[in-house]
Amino acid sequence: MLKFALIGAGRIGKMHSEIITSNPETELKFVYDLNREIAINVASISKAEVVNNPEEAINSNTTDAVLIASATPTHIEFIKMAANAGKPVLCEKPIDLDIIKVNKCREELKGIKSQIQIGFNRRFDLSHSKAQQARLKKEIGELEMIIITSRDPAAPGLDYLKACGGFFRDTTIHDFDLSRFILGEDPIVEVSAFGENLFDANVKTAKDFDTAMFILKSKSGVLIHINNSRRAVYGYDQRVEVFGSKGMVISNNQTPNSTERYTSSSTSSKDPIHFFFIERYQQAYKDQLNSFIETVKTNSRPKVTFEDGRKALIIANAAYESYKNKRTVEIKYD
Amino acid sequence: MLKFALIGAGRIGKMHSEIITSNPETELKFVYDLNREIAINVASISKAEVVNNPEEAINSNTTDAVLIASATPTHIEFIKMAANAGKPVLCEKPIDLDIIKVNKCREELKGIKSQIQIGFNRRFDLSHSKAQQARLKKEIGELEMIIITSRDPAAPGLDYLKACGGFFRDTTIHDFDLSRFILGEDPIVEVSAFGENLFDANVKTAKDFDTAMFILKSKSGVLIHINNSRRAVYGYDQRVEVFGSKGMVISNNQTPNSTERYTSSSTSSKDPIHFFFIERYQQAYKDQLNSFIETVKTNSRPKVTFEDGRKALIIANAAYESYKNKRTVEIKYD
Amino acid sequence: MLKFALIGAGRIGKMHSEIITSNPETELKFVYDLNREIAINVASISKAEVVNNPEEAINSNTTDAVLIASATPTHIEFIKMAANAGKPVLCEKPIDLDIIKVNKCREELKGIKSQIQIGFNRRFDLSHSKAQQARLKKEIGELEMIIITSRDPAAPGLDYLKACGGFFRDTTIHDFDLSRFILGEDPIVEVSAFGENLFDANVKTAKDFDTAMFILKSKSGVLIHINNSRRAVYGYDQRVEVFGSKGMVISNNQTPNSTERYTSSSTSSKDPIHFFFIERYQQAYKDQLNSFIETVKTNSRPKVTFEDGRKALIIANAAYESYKNKRTVEIKYD
Amino acid sequence: MLKFALIGAGRIGKMHSEIITSNPETELKFVYDLNREIAINVASISKAEVVNNPEEAINSNTTDAVLIASATPTHIEFIKMAANAGKPVLCEKPIDLDIIKVNKCREELKGIKSQIQIGFNRRFDLSHSKAQQARLKKEIGELEMIIITSRDPAAPGLDYLKACGGFFRDTTIHDFDLSRFILGEDPIVEVSAFGENLFDANVKTAKDFDTAMFILKSKSGVLIHINNSRRAVYGYDQRVEVFGSKGMVISNNQTPNSTERYTSSSTSSKDPIHFFFIERYQQAYKDQLNSFIETVKTNSRPKVTFEDGRKALIIANAAYESYKNKRTVEIKYD
Repeated sequence: MLKFALIGAGRIGKMHSEIITSNPETELKFVYDLNREIAINVASISKAEVVNNPEEAINSNTTDAVLIASATPTHIEFIKMAANAGKPVLCEKPIDLDIIKVNKCREELKGIKSQIQIGFNRRFDLSHSKAQQARLKKEIGELEMIIITSRDPAAPGLDYLKACGGFFRDTTIHDFDLSRFILGEDPIVEVSAFGENLFDANVKTAKDFDTAMFILKSKSGVLIHINNSRRAVYGYDQRVEVFGSKGMVISNNQTPNSTERYTSSSTSSKDPIHFFFIERYQQAYKDQLNSFIETVKTNSRPKVTFEDGRKALIIANAAYESYKNKRTVEIKYD
Repeated sequence: MLKFALIGAGRIGKMHSEIITSNPETELKFVYDLNREIAINVASISKAEVVNNPEEAINSNTTDAVLIASATPTHIEFIKMAANAGKPVLCEKPIDLDIIKVNKCREELKGIKSQIQIGFNRRFDLSHSKAQQARLKKEIGELEMIIITSRDPAAPGLDYLKACGGFFRDTTIHDFDLSRFILGEDPIVEVSAFGENLFDANVKTAKDFDTAMFILKSKSGVLIHINNSRRAVYGYDQRVEVFGSKGMVISNNQTPNSTERYTSSSTSSKDPIHFFFIERYQQAYKDQLNSFIETVKTNSRPKVTFEDGRKALIIANAAYESYKNKRTVEIKYD
Repeated sequence: MLKFALIGAGRIGKMHSEIITSNPETELKFVYDLNREIAINVASISKAEVVNNPEEAINSNTTDAVLIASATPTHIEFIKMAANAGKPVLCEKPIDLDIIKVNKCREELKGIKSQIQIGFNRRFDLSHSKAQQARLKKEIGELEMIIITSRDPAAPGLDYLKACGGFFRDTTIHDFDLSRFILGEDPIVEVSAFGENLFDANVKTAKDFDTAMFILKSKSGVLIHINNSRRAVYGYDQRVEVFGSKGMVISNNQTPNSTERYTSSSTSSKDPIHFFFIERYQQAYKDQLNSFIETVKTNSRPKVTFEDGRKALIIANAAYESYKNKRTVEIKYD
Repeated sequence: MLKFALIGAGRIGKMHSEIITSNPETELKFVYDLNREIAINVASISKAEVVNNPEEAINSNTTDAVLIASATPTHIEFIKMAANAGKPVLCEKPIDLDIIKVNKCREELKGIKSQIQIGFNRRFDLSHSKAQQARLKKEIGELEMIIITSRDPAAPGLDYLKACGGFFRDTTIHDFDLSRFILGEDPIVEVSAFGENLFDANVKTAKDFDTAMFILKSKSGVLIHINNSRRAVYGYDQRVEVFGSKGMVISNNQTPNSTERYTSSSTSSKDPIHFFFIERYQQAYKDQLNSFIETVKTNSRPKVTFEDGRKALIIANAAYESYKNKRTVEIKYD
């Protein structure tokens, strides 16, 4: 049994607590949150202990691993704390919104042998990973294009928008990572970004985008398109299309059931697709934990590394530069 | 150019006139209908000549072939007239509603070398014939089950209902033939029929069914299910499922376009399927004519023979017997 | 926490033990199996106690509820034992293969206030129950037809075939129940059954069918078709179609992921559907338990009653009679 | 009967001759081609007359309308010839590859009252136009994104590649026009273009692209993505997705039949989609002619104007500029 300390017990933290509790190989031992009430609530369901400070949870001899689901600006602090304590870490994305801090953290972690996995959950989605496998096994021949559609069901509130680091760093970062996952060894070298505020007043107040499109290029010339929206009335639209010399694999949307309706006005109608990430990526989150468990048990390299988190952020930053200058930006990872 | 005499210029006759006119290998020369006005209307569009009696059209030296689309009770008379004149015939289904008359006609035609094709148009549907091919080429291995769903969009009027010979002889006869087409050399040996009048007042007046189900068995033990309705609000529901030891092929419904709609209440919604047989089997009717042309040109056996028409009627008659006696009826074709 | 005694720890029993263990409202306390080793294995995973006889488990003060997953001939004995101990029971289908024993049990249970739920899991499938809701809420208008396709991926071994009571009582019984579920208050009054042994040698040895079709009729005239096979190479084929005056709802098959493949020879290809019932009805089994929990908590009538189990068996028996006599059989439930 | 002169009898010209011949309202009278043999071949099928020079065909009193399907560099000459003769013109796309010539032609046509329709056939595709209608009727609310996937089945030969004006002017021009069609009054103001030569040797020799992506922006802020390939092994991939505040409409791919195959390795497999434009847009080409007939009969404005042809070329030119300078280019239409 891998015993976890959970740092951060908000919406995502609570979801992780349930996944840890229901996994037969893991157990939730400690819960810390700035807001003690939230921590108590989550801990009670999982029969875990509430602690008053993160050090206590992370450094405890009982703790085998740390799951970080706190506010983004605190991620680096907790990553370092856990790494220094020699504890494996599964940290929600992003590492941080500031690449300078991320690079500094990277320097500080040099020499410290630690397993740090970043929470790009979509890599563990069965359908998306089938698309990645189709590329890896050359089922589609040579990869030529990737098309990612990724639209949230509804825009978040103003507080979230102000704190999230902007649409590209908050949302598209998942798609940048997914592109990197499918490309494998072939790095993304260029990005062109386009953003609009078409419908959401809060997004306007936050001076952010609610609608965005991107084109990226890999070193070998693969062209990648991403489109994002903060609102799709039919649900959480998550599609990946991988196109190559021998064919195409599409990871399509998923509905909660398999009913089809036929009426005088329409046929083959399905129900709305899964509402949002907790429903859509439920199994992916579970398999993310399973992968992390395997990494810890075999003392191997995490499937999603600190470097993966850093590179996705670098692409997001380059995307902002592209948007501002209305031109393609070359990406430097150093 | 194969020059046609068209006998009967009602709804189906008009459709055939258009198909003959637009086919580059055929030409409509003569049109006969009891109702001269209808004949004039159809003839004028196709630049054909209206004749006052069927003999004139059928026996004319100009006429190469005869298409019979008149009222069912007249089919046999015109088939014999054409056969005796040595003209190939494409005759709408059914041959007749009375098996005694059909058998008598069969006797009378013995010795007369003539090409008679019965209008079981569905055999020429590209998708249905792909299902048949999957059975023939053993793509699905050994055939084990056939499931046919065949539902009209709306019930016909009382006049039609009274004249049509009953639901089994009018509608299911197509499905009996389609089953025979897919089975190939393996004859249908048993039928069990079930009929209800659930919704249509005219059907009740005509003492007919608007809803029916069937199970048939072939000599080799293949089980066949057919279900029929006089009303499907979403359009003309035409599906064939062929199931065997190595898999399944479904000939599915068809919509007039490929749009899919996503709203807050439903996803992947398509438009209603094709309204009725003229839309759904448009290409099948054209390919039926092409097949007939080929038959005439090569002086070969029609793809759907008089015997096919006779056997489908025999099954329909056995189905009525099954319904009445609430038991499985063995089918005798002699 | 509802504390369970599990009677029978074979394949199905093991599955139930996992569902009980992972449900936050239930706990597995005791496990009994004739084969002690099997019981130990299941109990150890769930941290439950192995007992040497069923009485001990059922009668223990700790036990709140009993789940019966033992061999079919023992079901009645354990149902009575639990009922007499005042414990709610969730019993796998069928109650028994012998209607005389079932009727006797029914008599013996009269006066004993007990909650007995029979394990017709398919009623709890989200998609099937959407179809049932469409009938209940008249979304499809007046119900006219039900079409159920239910095919196993592969035939079981000879031992199973010999003990299972025959194809109709073992497999179709689920579809009879599903039909009853959709029909609601409208009882099934007639059945016609057709069975073949087309491919499986063990099935032949067991003098059973591997392929079957049925037509049933409800009191109000709804026609129902069921088709079954012991082998579908593409997976566990489970479809329900509900057709009525205002449209149709289909509960379609489900694949484990949402990938679609496009190659030079085919397009829109999906992976094989779920392999078998444990994969396909995973959530249905969980929701079956949730429904049972609710029943116990609220002291209400189970969603699937002893009477439901009895009636499904009566239909299966009538189906055998129909098969033997090649005729429609009227169903008597008394 | 609208009597046509056909100028150019190559692959596309031949297709148009068949469409004119089969349309009950039109007749092919004259055929001209530089290559007299080709003209004879096409004319003989349609019972039209071969002429030795285009003037003869265009200026004949018999000629009511002119269809131009000759080599692109000759389009302007024939458009002017027909316009000066007061004959309505249906001219294949593009008007010309050189915007200077197009602008000059536009000047020369000023004051000449003539109906000129440019052959952007996709506007007449039933499914694409349903997507456009969904935008027009605000069925999808306010338009926010358009995604167009447009991939040829196989790359053309070197001769074609050298003469076609480049991938953007030859192929993407259709997608630029389709975007303009969907946008309606809202003009495209910016384009960013990305091209690669990933697989085709002839394309390399012609210094062209075989793979391309685009992002365009309309004045109101709608973002448009287009992706193109010279090769899709599964057929002619033609999809349009229209996304807005109230939902999404997708015009999806079309297969020649509706069969679905289920095997041990895949399910719901369809046949390859339509091979290429002649198959896929067969009905669209017919409806393009019907629209042109209506325009002539009612003396109204063509549904696709000379100005539409000119603007699509301007966008293509701006796309090349964007590609060369690796930046977004503002589009000027004057």
